Amino acid sequence: MAGSRYAYVRDFELADVALPRTFLVVRIDGKGFHKYVAGAHSRFSQQHGFSKPNDANALELMNEAARHVMREFKGHITLAFGESDEYSFLIDRDSGLYNRRQSKLISHIVSLFTSAYVFAWQHYMRVPLQYPPSFDGRLVMYPTPKEVRDYFAWRQADTHINNLYNTVFWALVQQGGKSEREAHDILKGTVSAEKHEIMFQQFAINYDKLPAFFRKGTTLVWSPIADPHRAKPRTELRTLHVDIIGDTFWTAHPEQPLPAANEAAPCYEHPKRLHGDGLGRHIGL
Amino acid sequence: MAGSRYAYVRDFELADVALPRTFLVVRIDGKGFHKYVAGAHSRFSQQHGFSKPNDANALELMNEAARHVMREFKGHITLAFGESDEYSFLIDRDSGLYNRRQSKLISHIVSLFTSAYVFAWQHYMRVPLQYPPSFDGRLVMYPTPKEVRDYFAWRQADTHINNLYNTVFWALVQQGGKSEREAHDILKGTVSAEKHEIMFQQFAINYDKLPAFFRKGTTLVWSPIADPHRAKPRTELRTLHVDIIGDTFWTAHPEQPLPAANEAAPCYEHPKRLHGDGLGRHIGL
Amino acid sequence: MAGSRYAYVRDFELADVALPRTFLVVRIDGKGFHKYVAGAHSRFSQQHGFSKPNDANALELMNEAARHVMREFKGHITLAFGESDEYSFLIDRDSGLYNRRQSKLISHIVSLFTSAYVFAWQHYMRVPLQYPPSFDGRLVMYPTPKEVRDYFAWRQADTHINNLYNTVFWALVQQGGKSEREAHDILKGTVSAEKHEIMFQQFAINYDKLPAFFRKGTTLVWSPIADPHRAKPRTELRTLHVDIIGDTFWTAHPEQPLPAANEAAPCYEHPKRLHGDGLGRHIGL
Amino acid sequence: MAGSRYAYVRDFELADVALPRTFLVVRIDGKGFHKYVAGAHSRFSQQHGFSKPNDANALELMNEAARHVMREFKGHITLAFGESDEYSFLIDRDSGLYNRRQSKLISHIVSLFTSAYVFAWQHYMRVPLQYPPSFDGRLVMYPTPKEVRDYFAWRQADTHINNLYNTVFWALVQQGGKSEREAHDILKGTVSAEKHEIMFQQFAINYDKLPAFFRKGTTLVWSPIADPHRAKPRTELRTLHVDIIGDTFWTAHPEQPLPAANEAAPCYEHPKRLHGDGLGRHIGL
Repeated sequence: MAGSRYAYVRDFELADVALPRTFLVVRIDGKGFHKYVAGAHSRFSQQHGFSKPNDANALELMNEAARHVMREFKGHITLAFGESDEYSFLIDRDSGLYNRRQSKLISHIVSLFTSAYVFAWQHYMRVPLQYPPSFDGRLVMYPTPKEVRDYFAWRQADTHINNLYNTVFWALVQQGGKSEREAHDILKGTVSAEKHEIMFQQFAINYDKLPAFFRKGTTLVWSPIADPHRAKPRTELRTLHVDIIGDTFWTAHPEQPLPAANEAAPCYEHPKRLHGDGLGRHIGL
Repeated sequence: MAGSRYAYVRDFELADVALPRTFLVVRIDGKGFHKYVAGAHSRFSQQHGFSKPNDANALELMNEAARHVMREFKGHITLAFGESDEYSFLIDRDSGLYNRRQSKLISHIVSLFTSAYVFAWQHYMRVPLQYPPSFDGRLVMYPTPKEVRDYFAWRQADTHINNLYNTVFWALVQQGGKSEREAHDILKGTVSAEKHEIMFQQFAINYDKLPAFFRKGTTLVWSPIADPHRAKPRTELRTLHVDIIGDTFWTAHPEQPLPAANEAAPCYEHPKRLHGDGLGRHIGL
Repeated sequence: MAGSRYAYVRDFELADVALPRTFLVVRIDGKGFHKYVAGAHSRFSQQHGFSKPNDANALELMNEAARHVMREFKGHITLAFGESDEYSFLIDRDSGLYNRRQSKLISHIVSLFTSAYVFAWQHYMRVPLQYPPSFDGRLVMYPTPKEVRDYFAWRQADTHINNLYNTVFWALVQQGGKSEREAHDILKGTVSAEKHEIMFQQFAINYDKLPAFFRKGTTLVWSPIADPHRAKPRTELRTLHVDIIGDTFWTAHPEQPLPAANEAAPCYEHPKRLHGDGLGRHIGL
Repeated sequence: MAGSRYAYVRDFELADVALPRTFLVVRIDGKGFHKYVAGAHSRFSQQHGFSKPNDANALELMNEAARHVMREFKGHITLAFGESDEYSFLIDRDSGLYNRRQSKLISHIVSLFTSAYVFAWQHYMRVPLQYPPSFDGRLVMYPTPKEVRDYFAWRQADTHINNLYNTVFWALVQQGGKSEREAHDILKGTVSAEKHEIMFQQFAINYDKLPAFFRKGTTLVWSPIADPHRAKPRTELRTLHVDIIGDTFWTAHPEQPLPAANEAAPCYEHPKRLHGDGLGRHIGL
């Protein structure tokens, strides 16, 4: 066999299996979307004329890419949360996807997301894509539902902090005629209440009335649908813009990992499936 | 600070740094390109009418995607080799890219490749892309130049074995009127010489005269260009279809890791750069 | 600084931190105690005349070594289970011992155990120690109390299986006059009931009346002691030979990880201490 | 099978294989030998009356424990270096010991060392051992001979720095009548030449004439012995106190990893053996 004398190089492939029974979170981040990257002409968002502080179309494109990932990994990924140029996917603790090999999980999720993002670009954005955008990813293991819930609370708290800042910043620039530097200086050291005050007094913006889409980010869930004619419940992929820090969301979605759940209780029976079902049918453009 | 009570979830992000001074190979593979994946309608190559046994356009598209990766990581990735729906990238042993964090390296390379593949599709392929294709990746560390060279020999030997089989298989089907099952049965157990014989006797195909593009795969290198007017040599990205198992290639490319090199000798001075230089300028369509 | 040009070699020390909030089990095993190891003259147990099927003194020595480990890591190791030449230690999920560096945890526990074993030998055994015995170790992470409890059930089930076999085997040899080979052949394929039957019919041994020490192995726990005069409960290290597969033990030791516990509930407040407290005071011989 | 329902807990044992073809260094360190550990009564060296700055007997005991490790792993460990309460062992890059499982390698080496240390104590030390001493360990992978050599240079440079400091420090205390605090203050900020000067001027100590044992630490090697009557060279375990930073040692020991060696050249043929050969025969007391 021609290749057999070289096949020993496979021995260097080390195992990177995720610990069984842990929840896995894969978070992906855009490269150079909003921050300047050395060597790049400018930021991706700037080059493609994203609206500030939020570009609804660009966010919808992110959501569409994330839904593609969730459809591909239905039965494995149960929840996702996105804001700005990042998205977090929750893989069920009992999923055996790719035998839980971390590099496979990270790379395939990032690839699916990137592919769907570029593929669907023209259906969401008005300007042509000028060059291939890219993302990177990481994987984190969480032992119990408590940390999972706190992880998503952490991301949504971050959404709030960033969006509040960006909203008042761009109001100062776009409506207040300040330079970006002046706006930064005005906001330096201000607490949350002061930012609300500036928006309300100077620009008549009631922050809490702004779209939940921007304030709360996007949560994707596979939710069971009651169907009296079927023994096994169907599920549908829902796109939500709701608070996921408080209890309401989690109580309403008992299929999600619940911190208050008794660990020894039988787990929700996920309809485990092989990867790939329906590949490509769901970018419904 | 609103998010601070949840920030402890970051403590679960474990380090995954690659061992210093090892060569890193990132290999990416197409998902469901040529093999049937459970749940998928059919294979990606079939759905998009790839020519058999080799589709030159589809291979050129792979090469273009790989060149995009090499331009983005110039000074870090020094060599790449591709065949069929896979590509291997060699990261220099002294590269500090992403502080050698494995998940970052794998995910960003896979994302850049995927993005460029979808972005450039319409410039290489005649049929429209029907759904987002995807890839996965892995990373392997090699301690010395010897294993690096054997790794690439392993992939090129694999190219040879696969292409020889595919060429005679599709000759039997397309020119010989056999069914795919019949062709498989005819080839079962045949050695290399017998496959050559079938091609030559029945179809007048001299395998060794077929394009090196198909028989040898594609090798990408950053090669120094002699330039008497500059102290520091310029480099250009070259696309080759040559043997990389024997010594000739490696002797002609002293900038590559050379198994015979004295370990203690000073390494080739790679022009290390920050990632991102020239982002998007190189998909020259 | 004389050493600074070489200090870069520290960069090759990779992190090996255990996942936060997981229970850690370190299991140590004797090397060549009961099984023949290539190159060794004979088995350690044979060379030192251990009684068969169980040597109470040798087991007590194991327990003493394990108690030394538990005293050194009080507040971190909450439970241990031993049988034959192996011992398992449970490190609390919230322990920050050695910043959860796996190699440090494994190596120091194995070293403490080994040291105490050799140190205390002369106080437990009648024959002098002929050469230095050794152990190896491994570390396993468990995300929830359920797996922890099943781990210890697995070890105690193993104790039962091995001890049942060994007891009837050595009865056949010592009392029945069979050779070791004959005894093996007689027992081949027998189920549990048949082994009980052989012991009872041929040797009048009622297995269930044999000492729990041999049938159940040894469980070590730090148990709270009610003390009306103190706000904070004192704890004492208890040595038990009881069933730990059923619920009784776990219900009686609410300080142990309880599978039925609500994950979100506040954890038992372990009196966390720095390592090393009381070093050397407890091998009370 | 009684235990089979629990056997799933083994799935949580993750692989921790060291990268093939890398040199492995296991370094062990005494716990609380010279530094104060919280909770301990005092330092181990103090409690057992070690001479300052160096206790030759205690160092010989360390060497004896290290020789025990080297004999147990003959053919796998080729070199060791010790100073104070630490010892480093070099495992050959081609060793397949324990299938290169890191936790097994670390724990067994630390256990063998600890066991031999306690076992041989009474033959080297005048005072009885008061409690079980312990060590911890770590494992580092090095890709090439260059880093291996620099690692050992790093340790010997450290020996020099520490011994120089300790020698003048204890001269000031023992011969100069200073308190430990005064001695520290005197030495604060002094460079090497100043320390030499203090010793020579105040105490007539010529540092370079002190025993190499203290200044150079101890190097253990398996050296080939020329034997005209045997085809295969015998080896003997040698205990050296020599410089290992310069070239002389390495040139004289071509069986050691040589940074200048051609990577592709055939490796020294180590007589690979199963672990355990000669267990216990070598603590020649």
